[in-house]
Amino acid sequence: MNKFIRVNMTTMQVTTEAVPEKYVGLGGRALTSNFVNDEVKPTCHALGKNNKLIFAPGLLSGTSAPNSGRLSVGGKSPLTGTIKESNTGGSFSQKMAKLGIKALVIEGMPKDDKFYIIKIDMNNVTIEESPTEILSGCGNYKAIEVLSEKYGKNVGIGLAGPAGEYRLPSANISFKDPEGNIRSAGRGGLGAVLGSKKVKALVIDDTGATAVPIADPEKFRAASKVFSKALLDHPVAGQGLAAYGTDVLVNILNEAGGLPSYNFTTGRIDHNDIISGETLNATITERGGEGKVSHGCHRGCIIRCSQWYPDKQGKYITSGFEYETIWGLGADAGIQDLDTIAYIDRAMDDIGIDSIETAVAVATAMEGGLLPWGDGEAVLEAVKQIAVPTPLGRILGGGCAIVGKICGLYRVPVVKDQAIPAYDPRSVKGIGLTYATTTMGADHTAGYCISGNILKVGADLDPLKKDGQIEYARAMQIGTAAVDSTGMCLFVYFGIADNPGGYQALIDMINAQYGISLTATDVDKLGESVLKVERAFNKRAGFTNVHDRLPEFFEYEPLPPHNEVWDFTPKEIDEVYNF
Amino acid sequence: MNKFIRVNMTTMQVTTEAVPEKYVGLGGRALTSNFVNDEVKPTCHALGKNNKLIFAPGLLSGTSAPNSGRLSVGGKSPLTGTIKESNTGGSFSQKMAKLGIKALVIEGMPKDDKFYIIKIDMNNVTIEESPTEILSGCGNYKAIEVLSEKYGKNVGIGLAGPAGEYRLPSANISFKDPEGNIRSAGRGGLGAVLGSKKVKALVIDDTGATAVPIADPEKFRAASKVFSKALLDHPVAGQGLAAYGTDVLVNILNEAGGLPSYNFTTGRIDHNDIISGETLNATITERGGEGKVSHGCHRGCIIRCSQWYPDKQGKYITSGFEYETIWGLGADAGIQDLDTIAYIDRAMDDIGIDSIETAVAVATAMEGGLLPWGDGEAVLEAVKQIAVPTPLGRILGGGCAIVGKICGLYRVPVVKDQAIPAYDPRSVKGIGLTYATTTMGADHTAGYCISGNILKVGADLDPLKKDGQIEYARAMQIGTAAVDSTGMCLFVYFGIADNPGGYQALIDMINAQYGISLTATDVDKLGESVLKVERAFNKRAGFTNVHDRLPEFFEYEPLPPHNEVWDFTPKEIDEVYNF
Repeated sequence: MNKFIRVNMTTMQVTTEAVPEKYVGLGGRALTSNFVNDEVKPTCHALGKNNKLIFAPGLLSGTSAPNSGRLSVGGKSPLTGTIKESNTGGSFSQKMAKLGIKALVIEGMPKDDKFYIIKIDMNNVTIEESPTEILSGCGNYKAIEVLSEKYGKNVGIGLAGPAGEYRLPSANISFKDPEGNIRSAGRGGLGAVLGSKKVKALVIDDTGATAVPIADPEKFRAASKVFSKALLDHPVAGQGLAAYGTDVLVNILNEAGGLPSYNFTTGRIDHNDIISGETLNATITERGGEGKVSHGCHRGCIIRCSQWYPDKQGKYITSGFEYETIWGLGADAGIQDLDTIAYIDRAMDDIGIDSIETAVAVATAMEGGLLPWGDGEAVLEAVKQIAVPTPLGRILGGGCAIVGKICGLYRVPVVKDQAIPAYDPRSVKGIGLTYATTTMGADHTAGYCISGNILKVGADLDPLKKDGQIEYARAMQIGTAAVDSTGMCLFVYFGIADNPGGYQALIDMINAQYGISLTATDVDKLGESVLKVERAFNKRAGFTNVHDRLPEFFEYEPLPPHNEVWDFTPKEIDEVYNF
Repeated sequence: MNKFIRVNMTTMQVTTEAVPEKYVGLGGRALTSNFVNDEVKPTCHALGKNNKLIFAPGLLSGTSAPNSGRLSVGGKSPLTGTIKESNTGGSFSQKMAKLGIKALVIEGMPKDDKFYIIKIDMNNVTIEESPTEILSGCGNYKAIEVLSEKYGKNVGIGLAGPAGEYRLPSANISFKDPEGNIRSAGRGGLGAVLGSKKVKALVIDDTGATAVPIADPEKFRAASKVFSKALLDHPVAGQGLAAYGTDVLVNILNEAGGLPSYNFTTGRIDHNDIISGETLNATITERGGEGKVSHGCHRGCIIRCSQWYPDKQGKYITSGFEYETIWGLGADAGIQDLDTIAYIDRAMDDIGIDSIETAVAVATAMEGGLLPWGDGEAVLEAVKQIAVPTPLGRILGGGCAIVGKICGLYRVPVVKDQAIPAYDPRSVKGIGLTYATTTMGADHTAGYCISGNILKVGADLDPLKKDGQIEYARAMQIGTAAVDSTGMCLFVYFGIADNPGGYQALIDMINAQYGISLTATDVDKLGESVLKVERAFNKRAGFTNVHDRLPEFFEYEPLPPHNEVWDFTPKEIDEVYNF
C-alpha cells in the first residue's frame, strides 16, 4: 500500500515501488537523509544530473495529530555543498501521506530546455509540459492561481519560483498553503535543484484518498488529546506565538543583547518597537480587513504562529511573516518600516527565495556598498530584480557568502556558506554551537538553543557563558533530528520540553499509528542516527571539523552591549558531535 | 646583511631583522610557502587582519643568471582558500635582491579607510599615504606613470589595481616592467589581500645598491654560459616562444584536440587561425610601429616570449599577451578578433585582474546567459565595469566559480574555485592531474604536463592515455616547486628537461652564488618539501583529497574531437601526492 515513487527526468519515466525494506519505519528527515546518503554521490554537482531530490511526509503527517503536517525535502544543497533537509508547512505533506506516498524522488535531468509539471493523484503520476505563462519570471502567487485553476483549487502545489527556475543558490521550494498563500522549504537552495531538473511544479490531488490507517485509533486519540493540551497550555506554544507570531522574539532578543544588527556589529537597537511582534499584532488588529493575528501554515496546526499582514487598506500583503525575516531586514539591514519589510517578504515569497539568506545577503550588501543602509525601497527594488534576473538580482539570489566575496568583505556571517540567522552567537553562545556544527550550514532550526538560553524552556543556561552549552547543543540537535522525522512543527518542542507527559504523548501517537512500541531512548537513537548519516555524507563530500567553525570575526569583534566574543575553542566545538 | 622586513599595517610599524635561521637558504616559493604555513592561521579569513602577504625574490634573482628575475608572492588566497604562491616578472625581484631583502612581509590591517604606499630604498622602509589620484578606479597604466613621476622612473612598483582596491577575488598584483608596462602575479586573488591591507602600492628604489654577492664568480659565469646556451639552443625556449609567444600553443593544442572551446564543450575550433601565434607574429610584423615580436618581462630574460601588440596605427596596446588569455577569450568565449582580445587584455592589466580567471569567467557567463557568445565588444564593456565596479563588474571580478553559482550552472571549469586554464584535461590527461592535485587550485604552471604530453619535451606520453601520467604529474609538480624557488622563469624547463648539462648548470649557479654544494637530489627534496608544506597548510585549512577532483561534468561529457572523458579514479588521482 505504501508507495515509493521515483520520477526520472532523464528518461521521463515514473516508477512506483513498495517502500524499500531499509526505509520502512522512517519518515521526514530520517527518510530523506538516509536516502540522500545512500543514493546521492556526495561529490556530485548539486545542479548536475547526479543529484536527487526527495520529498517525504513525516511519520505522523496526514493524521489528526496536531501540527503534524510538515514536509521534509532532501538533497545535496547547491548553497552549502552539504546534505540538506528543509521542511515546510502547506498541505503537500498531508496529501502525500493520505495517498500512501512515503517518498517522491526526482532524479536525472531532461536534455531539452522545457519545464515540466509532475502531477500526482490516486492512480497516476504523470509528467506534463508546464504552461508557459507561469515560466520566466512569473511570480509564485500567480503561478499558484494558474495551477489551481488548471488542476483544481484543492490540489497541493510545490513550486520552483523564478529563483528556482534560474537555479540561484538561495532558491527555495514554495508550497501552497490551505488558502493559496505561500510556505517555503526555505533554506539551502533546494529550489535550484528542482529547477535544474526542469520541474516547475509538483501538483498533488488527494481526491478519493482514504484516511491514513491508524493501528490503535483509541490510543491515538487519547495521546493526541494529551499532546494538544501540552501545546495549548504552554505560554510560548499556546499563547506567545499565537499572539505575536515568531516576531515576539524581536524585543526578547533585543533585551538580551543578542539581536544582531547592522551586519552583526551590535546586539541591540533603538528602533526595536518599529519591528516588534507587539507592533505587528497592534498593526494587524488596527488595520483589520484581511488581517489575521493568528493563523496556521497547515491544517491541524494549533499553535498558529503565522499571521496575515495587511496593508493600510486592510488588503493582504503577506503571511508567514517570520521573526528571522523581520530581524534580517529590520535590524540587520536597518529598515525601519514594517510595511516595507512586509512588501519585501511578499516579493521574496513570490520569487521563491529564502528570506533568511536574502535578508542577511542584503545587510552584507549594505556593508559592501552595493545597497544604501536601511533603504527599504532600494531593497524592495533590488529583490524584485531577482525575478528578471539582473546582475544585482543574481548577486542577491546567490546568498550572503557570494555577496561577501564580490564585495571583498571579511565580515560575512555564514557557516558552510549559509547565512547565520537572527541570534548572535557571541551573546547567545549555545546557538553558536548549533550554527557551527549542524550538518546543514548555519541554521537555528537544527538545534534551537535559544530555548534554554533565552526563553528558559527545557533548560536554563546563561547565554553569555559556555557552561553546559556543548551538551545542550548536542541534545537539541539530536532531538530536532528526531522531531523533524515526525512531520511535527518544531515549535511543539516548547510544549513538551518541560512536560514529560506531552513528550510521551508524541511517542504514543507514533506507536498507536504504527502499532509499535518506541521508547524515548529509541527516539534519541533515531535522532543520533540521522545526524550520523548526515555527517557521513558531508564527510564524503569533503567536509571536516575545520568547516564546523564560525566566521573568524566573531572571535575578535566584541558585540555590544555585552561586548562578548565567540570563545569556544575548536576542541570544545568538536565535542558537540562526540556521541 | 640580508634583511627580512615586516610592515605591520595595524601599528604602521616597520621592523627589519636578519633572516630567521629557519628561512636561511630559501628563496621564492620555498620561502613564501614555508612562511605562510608557519605564520598564517590556515582558517583565517583571507581578507581579514590575520592573513599575511610575503614577497620574496628567488635564490638567483638579482644575479646575471638568465631569466632569474621572477618574484614570488605568498599568502592565503581569497579565491581558493588554499595557500598561494603567485609569481611575476618585472623588476621588483631583482631590486629586492640587490638591496639584500630576502622577504617583505605585510601584516595587519589599518583601522581607517585610507590607502598607503610602502616605499623601500637602501636605507629605509616608509609608509606614506597614497596620492588620491591613483585611487578609486584609476587604471594601473596611469598609476604607474604617477608613481614613476613621484618616485623616479627607475623604481620598481607593485600595485593593487582597482580590482585589488575593491578586494575582488580575482584581483592580481600588478608589477611595472622595465618599460613601465604591466606584469602580474596573476592567480589566486592576492591583489585583494594587498587591497585588504590598504596598500595601494609598493615602490622600491635600488639606487646605491651593490651587486648581489657571488661566492664563486668564475664558477657562476661558467655555469651561466652553459645554462644560456641550453635555453637558446632549444627549439621551444630558444626559438618558438620568441617567434610566436606563448600563443604558439593555439595551433598546437587545436591540432591536438585539447583547446577547450565554448566553455569546454569542444577541443577544436575552426577559427584558430584568427587567434594563433602565427597570426599574432604576422600582425605585429605587418603593423610595425611600437610592435615588438619578441620581448622580455624582466631584465636578463633571453627567452623573450612576450610581445608588444600594436593597433592598426602601430600604437602599443598590450604586452605579455599570453596564450591562456587569448585562448580564454578567443576559443573558450569564441571572440573571433585578435584586436578586441588585445584591448580586453589591456583592460584586465589596467584593472589588475587575473586574465585567466576573468577570461574563463567570461566564457562561463556566456553559457549562463550573462553575456552574448563571442561578443568581444560586450566583453570589453563588461570587463571595464570591474573598475567601477558595477554589479556585473563585481560578478566577473568574482571569478569563474561565482559566475557559475549565480548562473546556476553545473558546467563550471574550476578546481578549488580557481578557473581551469587552456588545456582540456580530457584530451591532455596529464595536465588534469596537475589541476586536480596541485596545492594552488587549477593551475597549469604548477606542473606543466603539456610538456611531455603535447610538446614532447622532457617526456613522451600519449595525452589521451593514463599510462605514466601519475608519475609524470608528480615529478612535474615537484620540479616546478623547486624552479619556483630559484627566481627562474618556468620556461627554462624546456631548455633543461632533456639537457642534463643545462640542468646541472642551473644547480651550479646556485652553488656558485651561495658557496654551497647542492645536488640534483637536494633540488628534488626541496621541491618535495615545498609541496608538503603547502599541503599541510591546506589540510589545516580544511582541504581533503575530496577537493583534489575535477568538476564532475568532465567525467560524463566526452570532448570532441577525441570524445574522451576524464577517467582517472579518485584512488589514482590520490597517488600523485604519494611521496
